[in-house]
Amino acid sequence: MPALSVDKFHPGLSVDCVILGFHQNELKALLLKMKKMDKWALPGGFVEKEEDVDKAAVRVLWERTGLKDIFLQQFYLFGDVGREEEGHVEGLVQKGVIDRELAGWLKQRFVTVGYYALVEYSQVEAPQPDYLSESCEWRSLSALPELMLDHGRILEKAHATLKRQLNYQPIGLNLLPRRFTMPELQALYETLLGQKLDRRNFQRKMMGYGILIRTGERRTGGAHKSPWLYEFDEEKYRQSLAGGLNAGW
Amino acid sequence: MPALSVDKFHPGLSVDCVILGFHQNELKALLLKMKKMDKWALPGGFVEKEEDVDKAAVRVLWERTGLKDIFLQQFYLFGDVGREEEGHVEGLVQKGVIDRELAGWLKQRFVTVGYYALVEYSQVEAPQPDYLSESCEWRSLSALPELMLDHGRILEKAHATLKRQLNYQPIGLNLLPRRFTMPELQALYETLLGQKLDRRNFQRKMMGYGILIRTGERRTGGAHKSPWLYEFDEEKYRQSLAGGLNAGW
Repeated sequence: MPALSVDKFHPGLSVDCVILGFHQNELKALLLKMKKMDKWALPGGFVEKEEDVDKAAVRVLWERTGLKDIFLQQFYLFGDVGREEEGHVEGLVQKGVIDRELAGWLKQRFVTVGYYALVEYSQVEAPQPDYLSESCEWRSLSALPELMLDHGRILEKAHATLKRQLNYQPIGLNLLPRRFTMPELQALYETLLGQKLDRRNFQRKMMGYGILIRTGERRTGGAHKSPWLYEFDEEKYRQSLAGGLNAGW
Repeated sequence: MPALSVDKFHPGLSVDCVILGFHQNELKALLLKMKKMDKWALPGGFVEKEEDVDKAAVRVLWERTGLKDIFLQQFYLFGDVGREEEGHVEGLVQKGVIDRELAGWLKQRFVTVGYYALVEYSQVEAPQPDYLSESCEWRSLSALPELMLDHGRILEKAHATLKRQLNYQPIGLNLLPRRFTMPELQALYETLLGQKLDRRNFQRKMMGYGILIRTGERRTGGAHKSPWLYEFDEEKYRQSLAGGLNAGW
């Protein structure tokens, strides 16, 4: 176990990262299996005294999982008292996972800043666990293992925030192939929202945002009428990311 | 100056409240004029060790301004290094506003959690300044005084968040009289968004949300054709607050 010098960190402040992956029309979260415990955790850690909190989240994610270049969005500060779990830290000491110094640090009250990212599952290469965990795996949101502390609530709130964000931000670039059909885009939204959508409403709304280009080509080879292929107008997509989707005001 | 016992607070953590008021089609912010300084501040303060951060924001707002029963929404954690201002704390000591103990506490690095509320200006009765400030006033967003630290940025981000929120949450209950005309509702949105809106689009969108009831009555007495009076369907309004406006999915 490498020594963790706790003096260099901002007291009582941590970050936790919810990394959601989209793969074969399923939503998955990247979780760490804790050493010697039957519990899982979000990749998280502390903020250095001379470090921006947003930058700490990027560093922590890299240190815990080896993942880089992931655009993390801050979504909530979890600041209730009683986020701790009775006996959790003491258990880690007794199992030899952490030393007394780190235990003393961990026993103070922490507030944690939640971050999330939605990534294309297959683009994430071999995430690695850190010294507190024994593996790092994608787990389906429909069959989550037991999570430590309030990490289940943090994950749930990240998902809720993402769903709400679909109302004012575009999504799909880097999650879909460069060219895609309207049913493929709809399947992405349906997975994220966890509900079936009306085909005609969906198409009308999407085209109304002005971020899609209908190419002159169709996907051929299927059993049904060949659907048109679309691609994102990257400039308009980025404008919408910054300024919000055209909400019809 | 009452003594402020800093030992009871969570280290390096504060809250700041952006209270926006709507009055005569103008957007105003509730600000504190600092004692002996030509600067203004958002109502803010510290979080007790045994206190939920969200509850601390409510308490702080009450202690600084006397305002109660205001629904505060958390919107962002400001966590960059360098939020401090060279000489700010030392200046307060030299002017006799704070003592050395409080100065030592204030000189540590702080991250601050931003909260905002939108209230009906005239319902706020006589806000009171605290011991660090000499007055508490509404100031128009179009003519803000100089704000200390990064409070200008916090205010700006709160306003941007509110504008974005108009895309997925209803607004207007408690800000408008019980019965109002469509042009009055539109004026509220135009003030918040800072832009003119198309009358027909606005009406279509608002009616599509299903939160408005058109009463059988009209406002009479104006020079123009008497407009219909509307009121909010409070049950559907509250459902939309919780679950989001019908975005057409």
